[in-house]
Amino acid sequence: MTLTAPTATIGLDTAAELAAQLRVDSVRSSTSAGSGHPTSSMSAADLFAVLATRHLRYDWDDPRSPANDHLVLSKGHASPLLYSLFKAVGVISDDELMHGYRRLGQRLQGHPTPALPWVDVATGSLGQGLPDGVGVALAGKYLDKLPYRVWVLCGDSEFAEGSIWEALDKASYYRLSNLVTMVDINRLGQRGPTDLGWDVDAYARRAEAFGARVLVIDGHDLTAVDDALTAAADPAGEQPTVILARTVKGRGFAEVEDSNDWHGKPFPPEMADRAIRELGGVRNLTVRGPRPAEGSIDGASPASDPAARPVTTEPTRRAAPASYGVGEPVPTRKAYGDALAALGARDPRIVALDGEVSNSTYAFEFARAHPERYFEMFIAEQQMVAAATGLAVRGYRPFASTFAAFLTRAYDFIRMGAVSGVDLCLVGSHAGIEIGPDGPSQMGLEDLAMMRAVHGSTVLYPSDATSTVALTEAMAATPGISYLRTTRGKYPVLYPDGETFPVGGSKVLRSSDEDAVTLIGAGVTLHACLAAADALADEGISARVIDCYSIKPIDDATITAAVLATAGRIVVVEDHHPEGGLGSAVKDSLVADGRVRPALIHLAVRAMPGSGSSKELLAWAGIDADHVTSAARYLVSG
Amino acid sequence: MTLTAPTATIGLDTAAELAAQLRVDSVRSSTSAGSGHPTSSMSAADLFAVLATRHLRYDWDDPRSPANDHLVLSKGHASPLLYSLFKAVGVISDDELMHGYRRLGQRLQGHPTPALPWVDVATGSLGQGLPDGVGVALAGKYLDKLPYRVWVLCGDSEFAEGSIWEALDKASYYRLSNLVTMVDINRLGQRGPTDLGWDVDAYARRAEAFGARVLVIDGHDLTAVDDALTAAADPAGEQPTVILARTVKGRGFAEVEDSNDWHGKPFPPEMADRAIRELGGVRNLTVRGPRPAEGSIDGASPASDPAARPVTTEPTRRAAPASYGVGEPVPTRKAYGDALAALGARDPRIVALDGEVSNSTYAFEFARAHPERYFEMFIAEQQMVAAATGLAVRGYRPFASTFAAFLTRAYDFIRMGAVSGVDLCLVGSHAGIEIGPDGPSQMGLEDLAMMRAVHGSTVLYPSDATSTVALTEAMAATPGISYLRTTRGKYPVLYPDGETFPVGGSKVLRSSDEDAVTLIGAGVTLHACLAAADALADEGISARVIDCYSIKPIDDATITAAVLATAGRIVVVEDHHPEGGLGSAVKDSLVADGRVRPALIHLAVRAMPGSGSSKELLAWAGIDADHVTSAARYLVSG
Repeated sequence: MTLTAPTATIGLDTAAELAAQLRVDSVRSSTSAGSGHPTSSMSAADLFAVLATRHLRYDWDDPRSPANDHLVLSKGHASPLLYSLFKAVGVISDDELMHGYRRLGQRLQGHPTPALPWVDVATGSLGQGLPDGVGVALAGKYLDKLPYRVWVLCGDSEFAEGSIWEALDKASYYRLSNLVTMVDINRLGQRGPTDLGWDVDAYARRAEAFGARVLVIDGHDLTAVDDALTAAADPAGEQPTVILARTVKGRGFAEVEDSNDWHGKPFPPEMADRAIRELGGVRNLTVRGPRPAEGSIDGASPASDPAARPVTTEPTRRAAPASYGVGEPVPTRKAYGDALAALGARDPRIVALDGEVSNSTYAFEFARAHPERYFEMFIAEQQMVAAATGLAVRGYRPFASTFAAFLTRAYDFIRMGAVSGVDLCLVGSHAGIEIGPDGPSQMGLEDLAMMRAVHGSTVLYPSDATSTVALTEAMAATPGISYLRTTRGKYPVLYPDGETFPVGGSKVLRSSDEDAVTLIGAGVTLHACLAAADALADEGISARVIDCYSIKPIDDATITAAVLATAGRIVVVEDHHPEGGLGSAVKDSLVADGRVRPALIHLAVRAMPGSGSSKELLAWAGIDADHVTSAARYLVSG
Repeated sequence: MTLTAPTATIGLDTAAELAAQLRVDSVRSSTSAGSGHPTSSMSAADLFAVLATRHLRYDWDDPRSPANDHLVLSKGHASPLLYSLFKAVGVISDDELMHGYRRLGQRLQGHPTPALPWVDVATGSLGQGLPDGVGVALAGKYLDKLPYRVWVLCGDSEFAEGSIWEALDKASYYRLSNLVTMVDINRLGQRGPTDLGWDVDAYARRAEAFGARVLVIDGHDLTAVDDALTAAADPAGEQPTVILARTVKGRGFAEVEDSNDWHGKPFPPEMADRAIRELGGVRNLTVRGPRPAEGSIDGASPASDPAARPVTTEPTRRAAPASYGVGEPVPTRKAYGDALAALGARDPRIVALDGEVSNSTYAFEFARAHPERYFEMFIAEQQMVAAATGLAVRGYRPFASTFAAFLTRAYDFIRMGAVSGVDLCLVGSHAGIEIGPDGPSQMGLEDLAMMRAVHGSTVLYPSDATSTVALTEAMAATPGISYLRTTRGKYPVLYPDGETFPVGGSKVLRSSDEDAVTLIGAGVTLHACLAAADALADEGISARVIDCYSIKPIDDATITAAVLATAGRIVVVEDHHPEGGLGSAVKDSLVADGRVRPALIHLAVRAMPGSGSSKELLAWAGIDADHVTSAARYLVSG
């Protein structure tokens, strides 16, 4: 890779021209599309123009260069501004801007996505771009050890999202001096004034209290913007920078300036013409700012001193390869930790994050073995998933873990991760009522439904340590959002070392020509199915037992074959609410196949649980071996 | 109701005795249960003892008294402390504490729930008790207009959750001087030190920046605690109060004080004995603090001046009863707004909240008609649901709305609302790809799966304005978490005024003895089914069409009858991902019935959408009338 020195510095007069062009093109593109957010773009045009011409170090011909700075449009609805910038640097044409924006099959979508090579993450769900940027900055400072900066443009409305404060908290904790947040304080949200309006001092107090270096400017004073961006670009420092820019919504077109009536509305054509005239007419300036400095990817940046890194876990040992004897009682969560630590030893791209429960999820096994690749996110599940997303942008393979119940906290981030197309490995421990005395707040009972509904997701639920190790390894090679559900308690190892568990497969653990009923379980309920099969055998009833460790994709062929072989009789049992989980996946599979009319009993957690022992609760919910046995007996005798 | 004056003030010496008893009982109960969090209880025992003896105004014999203060244990894992307090005030026995805690079928669960009459909301998912408390305080200040205070005990770890900052932001915006947050800063989380440790000044800067009055104390100095609680109890003020109490985890038992090794672990019996000895032995003090002042529920508090309330919407008109002509194009989101405003005129318990998109969800119709019962939550969906939860605690019926996609942000809060057993009406607008050009970040495509998986939930999805009005009204009488999905675009009204839409029902819109196939849709896809039925009729194929407006519970009888009548042939079509939504509900229903072997085609959104027009996207996803027609034709000819 050849990197050249930055081009000659572009003057602020050119930046001013560019700002006018960005405004004009934001108006033109949104009017042409018949929808979009011109006024939200116009307030931030000066920030973007100065940034792009004089500060953003980016090789537009090589968007994948690791030396490039990163630009995240957290206020994703200002997409006309971003796309107008892409035109101004010459990577998209005016024709695409005018005829591709918000159209079917086009890449200039209503909110930016990585369908565009210059976009790192999808935005549009507010309060996510900055948390994602924290992840990219973590990669830059601690893993890539490159001097790139991460520039995030936020709206002021999104500062009402708690996720913004999770992000700034982590940015200061991890001393992300390579992260610069520009806040476009135009005081107006969608339906009216924001919470804090133009009280820039209030924003300043908050951001400072969260550990940021704060610069307050007039966001339309190009010199002030330039000075702030110059001051901000200090990746060797100790603090993230937040630039609070007081701006005017619709700036540059007096008719709509600071008006509450023009959020998210394109101007009608004749109005757009007036705006363009007032803005000085259509321009076709092509201008590029600095490129990354030559050699900037060769060495560690001053910021990459590992001593500067907060350490949350002391390295004590390397992980041994994970291996278990059949029959040994091992929690799958423990096997996950073992597997991840071992995987980390083989693959330097593997990184791990956890929400302050690493001693429960066993992510601490990885943290101990590879402390330099472990990021403690404390109790901030949204930021945990966002940081994972940002790390994935830089080519790392993040495993992020917490209790299955608490991944619900991050559902919007998981959903947006799918839109971003990143590869994330999520792990939820303490699944279901099996956890026992802690009660329903800690019980993951919606997680399978939630994760199955994510576009392109993979959902895995191993029953023993051996399969957990195999599936943890499989996740590291699985595209998109993958999810592993682990169990709190100890259950016997079922499979010998070396057994394979392809994603989309299953295991038939009991099978004969006389099988009268199929029992399908996963995780803790597979053990109930095995015990039930033994009890049924004592009664002379032969049962087929399937370990449905891959819930999405599910093993249609094996399930259908089993159900056909057992005259349609099937018991499916899960430690999850009845909607959207294993039972739903099995039913979807059978109905799609269409060859069988199943006589199906679906055992699941149908009432609100309380505390109790694991054994008591599994019996109470009707998902233990006794209930599986009874259900199977009923079907066979029925 | 008779309310007496507060009892004679209890001295701090008694509070000290109580604190020792709370510690001893926290140790005893957790050791007896074999699980629990004694050390997290011990750090906060002094705060609780002083609060309960001298400040909390509570009639323990009448927990439902509207005059009572409210006490929320946001750090729900400190349940031994709370339950020990319940023993100390005489509402539970020592026997229940020792033999009920964390046991099957008992009400003293691992984390508190409203199974106990003195508990308002379930906690245990950290960072939720304070947001819930904001909702209770909103009710107190603006609706009940009663001088009760809301006291929330938080842990320090949970201050890493963004939801805490959403809560403080709203508490200061709404000037909730009746809300007092006590933070037990014991510096240790589950797996190690917290983000900020004992940097109490950092907490102080943050809470002050978010608009709170901050008091910093030594949480084990009873006089300091007492002074702070006295200063805090000022509901006529303008700010919420945050008391930052520096504490020691495990305080009172030197062996575990400030130790990182004893989070969430009961002491073994002999260790518990040592702890109890060091704490001065078992006590059986019964002590109650002040009761609410006589007459305190008769008049408005000084804080209830409506002029003190931030107004986000100006009242302009009362809503007319909602009514639409058949064939008139009306967006269901608009009908929702109309219906809610009308409902609010009839029922003073109805309140509404929105996440800064009320002009899109049409919640602004309610805000205009009943500004005193509308709470703008800005872009803070977690706080929106939590505030709704707190308002429900006080007997109001909250309707909380945002885009369906953004309700994913609040899934953990919705889940916990179900554990709390509150009645919440949630409304998600802009469902599915139907929204068109804004793209996938704004498209609710997981919401049906997410909401169906919530325990005890009701999921409704109307196709026209008339049914939307009826279902909005039905929601107001539906227990638990109910969800209404609305559509962005205009579609013709299908039903005349006066038509009824019972929850759990459906409508058969086309039916004959010759029906060859059943078409099931809801929302926008019902219109596709109707158009498809017309097209099929032109080909001589008679189709039954079902409006499945109630997705949970679903109308099993009607669906089964239709499928039996049409030889098992069924097309189900939805604007949602294929997992967990309408198709899943229909399949669950058919499999549970078991009488039919369905030949089912399930049309859903299977690829990642981009921008486009509504019409283009419905065609692209294969869920428009043409695709329904083709699918039906295939089944009939197959």
